[in-house]
Amino acid sequence: LTEDIILALDFGGTKRAAGITRVGSYGWESIRSLAVPPGADASTDLRLMYTLAGELLDGRTPAAVGVSFGGPVDFEAGLVRLSHHVPGWESTQLRQILSENFNAPAAVDNDANSATLGEYRLGAGRDCRSMIYITVSTGVGAGWVLDGRVWRGRDSMAGEIGHTSLDPNGPICLCGKRGCLERYASGPYIVEDVRRELSDEPDQGQVLRSLAEGDINSLNARIVAEAAAAGDSLASARLRQAAWALGTAIGNCANLMNPDRFVLGGGVTGAGDAFWAEIRKQARRTSLPQVNFEIRPASLGGQSPLWGAVLLAEELLR
Amino acid sequence: LTEDIILALDFGGTKRAAGITRVGSYGWESIRSLAVPPGADASTDLRLMYTLAGELLDGRTPAAVGVSFGGPVDFEAGLVRLSHHVPGWESTQLRQILSENFNAPAAVDNDANSATLGEYRLGAGRDCRSMIYITVSTGVGAGWVLDGRVWRGRDSMAGEIGHTSLDPNGPICLCGKRGCLERYASGPYIVEDVRRELSDEPDQGQVLRSLAEGDINSLNARIVAEAAAAGDSLASARLRQAAWALGTAIGNCANLMNPDRFVLGGGVTGAGDAFWAEIRKQARRTSLPQVNFEIRPASLGGQSPLWGAVLLAEELLR
Repeated sequence: LTEDIILALDFGGTKRAAGITRVGSYGWESIRSLAVPPGADASTDLRLMYTLAGELLDGRTPAAVGVSFGGPVDFEAGLVRLSHHVPGWESTQLRQILSENFNAPAAVDNDANSATLGEYRLGAGRDCRSMIYITVSTGVGAGWVLDGRVWRGRDSMAGEIGHTSLDPNGPICLCGKRGCLERYASGPYIVEDVRRELSDEPDQGQVLRSLAEGDINSLNARIVAEAAAAGDSLASARLRQAAWALGTAIGNCANLMNPDRFVLGGGVTGAGDAFWAEIRKQARRTSLPQVNFEIRPASLGGQSPLWGAVLLAEELLR
Repeated sequence: LTEDIILALDFGGTKRAAGITRVGSYGWESIRSLAVPPGADASTDLRLMYTLAGELLDGRTPAAVGVSFGGPVDFEAGLVRLSHHVPGWESTQLRQILSENFNAPAAVDNDANSATLGEYRLGAGRDCRSMIYITVSTGVGAGWVLDGRVWRGRDSMAGEIGHTSLDPNGPICLCGKRGCLERYASGPYIVEDVRRELSDEPDQGQVLRSLAEGDINSLNARIVAEAAAAGDSLASARLRQAAWALGTAIGNCANLMNPDRFVLGGGVTGAGDAFWAEIRKQARRTSLPQVNFEIRPASLGGQSPLWGAVLLAEELLR
């Protein structure tokens, strides 16, 4: 029997989350998440999600299933190209698999687009026409909404703001280019650079060293942010560089697209007021005086992809 | 008596052009243009356009009037913010003025958006869903169409690709920033740089010097392009730099927006095959491997803004 419930699934970086809502009600009936075990492949990953979903559904059939996936997805085809986090997902017809498993229509989008939809309809973008959502985490990605519609582009690749080049003489990015936004602003690169500077300059970064308890391999982006907030000059300088890059990319994007609002989410954006002030200053400096916009933090936190998945499913029922 | 004719007006850089078409027929019934006289202000500019239009209309009333204007326009308000070419246009309610003068509904947009619409419906963008048009001339501007609709942005400022920054250590642009696309690729800056290099390096640029007949003040972008095509190394190097900047901006934009096609128009794009090859190479190098796009020359030439004006007017009749 089909109930008027929606099943939302989030294949994130380290966690699998599932939630159930009633159609048209934006509160969770129930929600559940689990860490992905080390060594998981696509098959164990999917089974883990089925376990979560099974507990929530308790024998009921959902009216629709929405999915946020951490990796490139061909939205039109319902096809996962690959996972950024778990091996074995290459070219998986996830929409079809889920639709058959749950006996319900399904929609699958990448996590940046899902989070964008969630923030636009239910979060920090609720009262605007056009919005760009940027997630600054292990990678830097974006999604954009124009007049209520997520724009995915020719190859479902729109939003790769992380690989816009900001400096032809900048440091080399994994993609092979120099000076990409992601090279400056993503968590792993921030940590990599900070570790190198700590090794090179034994007198610098005392707060960082003490937060790392002497083991600089234990550093992560959250600790770098904490150290900056506590006045560590090495950590602060590195985060200023990340903020410069984010502000420049936002200002360039504002000139090109002139959206109402930029919404920023992801772990690195928790780096404090000085970080946000620097982003806003550099974005304003980069954009033309006649180009107006706001920059706001995401308001659904880690749940924006899962809420986006709910909304993706709802679109199937219209 | 209202006839089923459309009046299209183009307030360009150096010329005023007007044309008349039958609704739904994409051939000119008649078309006329005049050079703007030196010392013109907004009032003489408008009278000049009325003269052209009066000759074409010959007493008839158009069903609608469409306008392409060379300067920032608030499309929703029908308001010209200023002209890039003629003083005195600041904050002019051009839509209202024309609507009253011609006793017909009118629509006014900036020249980049008009040319975009023209190329998308009738020119090099006819068979695609999403297209970015870039004009490379005295300035560098862009317009974009997504699923048949021109996207103008919050402040009608979308498309300012000329002021996206490509290099924080690049040369200073009039806007105050460093390394803007316009600083590398617009005609006046190309000419300015080439003149300086000719002064600084008396042994370089022999072809350029001979084309300029010894007077480097007579150089313009067209002559620089000719010199490059004839093998002048100084001219070629400067155009390679412009092509690098265009290719980088296009590649960044492709990553961000993933459109089907880029269409390039404006005088500087006549700089020959090597110039186009360099643009395509750098755009491909800047964009991610999964991001596909084409780069094509505009096909309506100098008439793309005027055709766009026809289409703007037609939208009023739907």
